[in-house]
Amino acid sequence: MVLEKLILDGIAVANTVKEHVKERVEYLKSKDIRPCLATILVGNDPSSATYVKMKGNECERLGILSKRIHLPEETTTEELVACIIELNHSTDIDGILLQHPVPSHIDERAAFEAISIEKDVDGVTSQGFGQLAFGFSDYPCCTPAAIMQIIEHYKIPVEGKHAVVIGRSPILGKPVSLMLLNKNATVTTCHSKTVDLPSIVKQADIVVAAVGKPNFVKGDWIKDGAVILDAGYNKGNIGDVDYEECFNKARAITPVPGGVGPVTISMLLKHTVDSAEKREK
Amino acid sequence: MVLEKLILDGIAVANTVKEHVKERVEYLKSKDIRPCLATILVGNDPSSATYVKMKGNECERLGILSKRIHLPEETTTEELVACIIELNHSTDIDGILLQHPVPSHIDERAAFEAISIEKDVDGVTSQGFGQLAFGFSDYPCCTPAAIMQIIEHYKIPVEGKHAVVIGRSPILGKPVSLMLLNKNATVTTCHSKTVDLPSIVKQADIVVAAVGKPNFVKGDWIKDGAVILDAGYNKGNIGDVDYEECFNKARAITPVPGGVGPVTISMLLKHTVDSAEKREK
Repeated sequence: MVLEKLILDGIAVANTVKEHVKERVEYLKSKDIRPCLATILVGNDPSSATYVKMKGNECERLGILSKRIHLPEETTTEELVACIIELNHSTDIDGILLQHPVPSHIDERAAFEAISIEKDVDGVTSQGFGQLAFGFSDYPCCTPAAIMQIIEHYKIPVEGKHAVVIGRSPILGKPVSLMLLNKNATVTTCHSKTVDLPSIVKQADIVVAAVGKPNFVKGDWIKDGAVILDAGYNKGNIGDVDYEECFNKARAITPVPGGVGPVTISMLLKHTVDSAEKREK
Repeated sequence: MVLEKLILDGIAVANTVKEHVKERVEYLKSKDIRPCLATILVGNDPSSATYVKMKGNECERLGILSKRIHLPEETTTEELVACIIELNHSTDIDGILLQHPVPSHIDERAAFEAISIEKDVDGVTSQGFGQLAFGFSDYPCCTPAAIMQIIEHYKIPVEGKHAVVIGRSPILGKPVSLMLLNKNATVTTCHSKTVDLPSIVKQADIVVAAVGKPNFVKGDWIKDGAVILDAGYNKGNIGDVDYEECFNKARAITPVPGGVGPVTISMLLKHTVDSAEKREK
């Protein structure tokens, strides 16, 4: 397939995923199984509150139950872990999402690690990451999975391509690097200590921006004809990529909003239903 | 520290590690704890038999008990997994090493995954890999850990350097890529599908060869002054790097034999003692 200049429409990709999820939810309902995602929000960060609400609402739109847990700002690590362990044991819950970030006094990694692998539908545990890296995870981390879903949907060639990932977080840069590697890309992972980042990005056939800085990736960093996936989502709906500048250089690019974000949520819903289907067995 | 041309002497690094391990074994003995590594060899591959024997002998040389299990060629996956589970439950065993590769009819990954994380001193499970990737593993995979140990021993600068890893296996290329990334290198992972490998290697400040092909990396692929770590160990004691050619270009290089190999074994011994020390608590 020859690609012309293409805006990678995350809403269209998400709708395709969600349509399929909805059918599977209907089928499960006919077997008296109601998939249920527990979301945990700690504290009062308004963006986190918005994200978690969106996720809960999206669940309900597709017939997935949403158990919304809101813990106070002063929750301790121990209390949060105890809450997660209770959800791990609850037979009604198919997936657990802990909204990131949690207040800074909490050991976020300890909380993530408390989520049982069977319910880690957001793909945040180290065990889930290891399985993803080795190519057999049930629930790959949602944002990287969304990026791969967009790539697959638009049949973007990956094998033998040079992918440059900017960012190395446990839930984005690292897992997407491994997923691209498993699809036979040559992968360079860059970060804040990378020397001469523009010249490295310039080599990329595929650029993944996962750095959390608005308009960080500039147009003159981009090789003509590159594919750009912007996983950034900064204040004011601004991506990590300077869209105006990069659009002209890229062969294909995700907008923000309407790119990776909506697909991420659809992956979460899909994984929740994947998990619920295991109840049947 | 300014490095002159340097042969990275794995035997010296291993001896430093082993000296410390030996002291710790003596201390444990004084507390009536005898560290014990179980090694499992399946079938009759002569190189595997040699490697596993070396590991067992090295254990005994330092006062670590070596429980050597040799299963017949026709062992099934189920039988191997059952053997591993028994070792998981044995309170006398601190670590389990399954010699790789196992006969091809066995599901090697399933066997590796059966090793409990507490005894995965060789660092082969996906859970161990995830912990390594996130920077909190007790027992990082031994060959990558050996490479990092050599780097640390010789104080080779890593932060901000461009490291190119050739190979992406679960026990070598992938974990060493993540370990270098966690030490703030910019990391490119290459493999059989990489296009124009020489030009990518040419950019590297640090080259890790982990491809399993004798003399694969050529001198004219190497940037002047690069550091080369050769994890290859092919028939006839030949590395993955053409040593003669690459020596002239490199600032520092590991020989084969006497490079990464001996340090790998010392890491295994160290991890076994790390595990035994937990019995004290």
